[in-house]
Amino acid sequence: MAKTHYFPKDRVHYSWDRKHAPVLAIESGDTVVFETRDVSDNQFHPGSTTADIAGLNWERVYPLAGPVYVAGAEPGDTLAVEILDIQTRGWGWTAILPGLGLLAEDFPEPYLRTFDLTNGDVIQFREDIAVPIEPFFGTMGVCPANAEQQAIMPPGNFGGNLDTRQLTRGTTLYLPVQEPGALFSCGDGHAAQGDGEVCVTGLECPLYASLKFTLIKGKRIPSPQYLTKGPLTPRVNHAGFFGTTGVGPDLMEASQNALRAMIEHVSQTYDLDRKDAYLLASLCVDLKISEIVDAGQYVVSAVLPQAVFTK
Amino acid sequence: MAKTHYFPKDRVHYSWDRKHAPVLAIESGDTVVFETRDVSDNQFHPGSTTADIAGLNWERVYPLAGPVYVAGAEPGDTLAVEILDIQTRGWGWTAILPGLGLLAEDFPEPYLRTFDLTNGDVIQFREDIAVPIEPFFGTMGVCPANAEQQAIMPPGNFGGNLDTRQLTRGTTLYLPVQEPGALFSCGDGHAAQGDGEVCVTGLECPLYASLKFTLIKGKRIPSPQYLTKGPLTPRVNHAGFFGTTGVGPDLMEASQNALRAMIEHVSQTYDLDRKDAYLLASLCVDLKISEIVDAGQYVVSAVLPQAVFTK
Repeated sequence: MAKTHYFPKDRVHYSWDRKHAPVLAIESGDTVVFETRDVSDNQFHPGSTTADIAGLNWERVYPLAGPVYVAGAEPGDTLAVEILDIQTRGWGWTAILPGLGLLAEDFPEPYLRTFDLTNGDVIQFREDIAVPIEPFFGTMGVCPANAEQQAIMPPGNFGGNLDTRQLTRGTTLYLPVQEPGALFSCGDGHAAQGDGEVCVTGLECPLYASLKFTLIKGKRIPSPQYLTKGPLTPRVNHAGFFGTTGVGPDLMEASQNALRAMIEHVSQTYDLDRKDAYLLASLCVDLKISEIVDAGQYVVSAVLPQAVFTK
Repeated sequence: MAKTHYFPKDRVHYSWDRKHAPVLAIESGDTVVFETRDVSDNQFHPGSTTADIAGLNWERVYPLAGPVYVAGAEPGDTLAVEILDIQTRGWGWTAILPGLGLLAEDFPEPYLRTFDLTNGDVIQFREDIAVPIEPFFGTMGVCPANAEQQAIMPPGNFGGNLDTRQLTRGTTLYLPVQEPGALFSCGDGHAAQGDGEVCVTGLECPLYASLKFTLIKGKRIPSPQYLTKGPLTPRVNHAGFFGTTGVGPDLMEASQNALRAMIEHVSQTYDLDRKDAYLLASLCVDLKISEIVDAGQYVVSAVLPQAVFTK
């Protein structure tokens, strides 16, 4: 009979490693409840400011809850992870971290903001700008094949730091098992993030989540897949969207140019500092590949929901 | 007082060229009604088959209706094009054209299908698969700066072959004027297309459209922008979505891998030929950049609306 397990809150790991001892062993069909730390491992807190970025100990970034050993899981199987519930826990932060982000050269200075998440289901970015809270784990993955002290930050076909906003409540994530027992871990909670996570952080936060694990024996998938239970961006899809584009032969540059145009649009239209426009884009602007086939010139759209502007 | 003009149906051009004589001269605030040919310039018709691809005269591809001269438009202005109405006209086609498309190497053989669009507001891809008709011009643009016999296929900062599915009824497209009079043209109608237009064709079709032009003097934008009037993908957003991913250091390869996984998923799950799965993806699967910031490993999602499967 399926069980519910409570993952111990004091157990984290900071690398992918097949030698990490499993903290929990479960059967297919079981559910695990997690309470995870924010990606800074509690180094930031509700009173943090930009000045605290300089003191960040990067060795402690990406604390993951895990590994969870799933009985019978073998390479060549698929692990289905259903997100039964997922909730924020009071606060979050977002930041420009020098050297990182899609526009690292345009934004060389550090910048950090914290947000109170105790009052309703939105992030009050400004009194007239409300971004819906739609929490998900930035990082969910099985242990990569042969991993030894592998950095958490780059994702891979094993999943990991996918930063994929569709992985919220109701979605089932499918992961290709690479090591015996799957060795699932999660963390890096986001209260909100647009497709792209352009400034390199979402709304980073501690999370509560309840995940149900089902092993699909013998089903091979090449990289993560997912099935959402309902609509995409349901909280903002009642109003219109403003799109900017980048057009060119390189998808990375086209993405940067679409984002630059969006930052310009947001900062001018809504009298927002450019740094804040960059953060806001990271929280709610979606990058779409509009076309990827036209004679070597591709179009990337950055798409902003008008619904976040509430006045 | 604003006028409505009817663009002559027999006038098309096949290249961007600042020397093309304007067919119509309008004032800011005027509306123009277009009836455009499909991108093959009537070379395909409702009875066409795969065998007709070999005989396609590429010199006649991309017939555009235009140029429309907008009084007072100068480089450094923005031309707003509001899509007041846009409708299909009875039929359409989609195809795999050898050498083109995001998976040109995986699909070397030609393949063409035509569709009856006279019966309701969906494309009946199979008896149990219905893709919503949401028409837009694949190509809308101002004449590029200094253009002389410039090919239509590659888009640019002037717009052109943007193949951007959000440019449907109610949306306003903003284009940066590059030549005196703007010299707007349009064509390449699509009855449906996903973000990416992955197989290189949408549901290609003749269109009826009514466009309202407004000149915004002195407003400079770096490349096209747009404002939709309402929700994104409203016809399919009541149900869930299935996502596949590509993960890696190159966005193009990640996009290809996400698409390959999607074709595999669709062909296996719905017993669809792989070629048809590729076409279906081109018509309704959206490519999203899920994250573009994580230590040189990026995630592209291909996202399929479950609502197109009707039984």
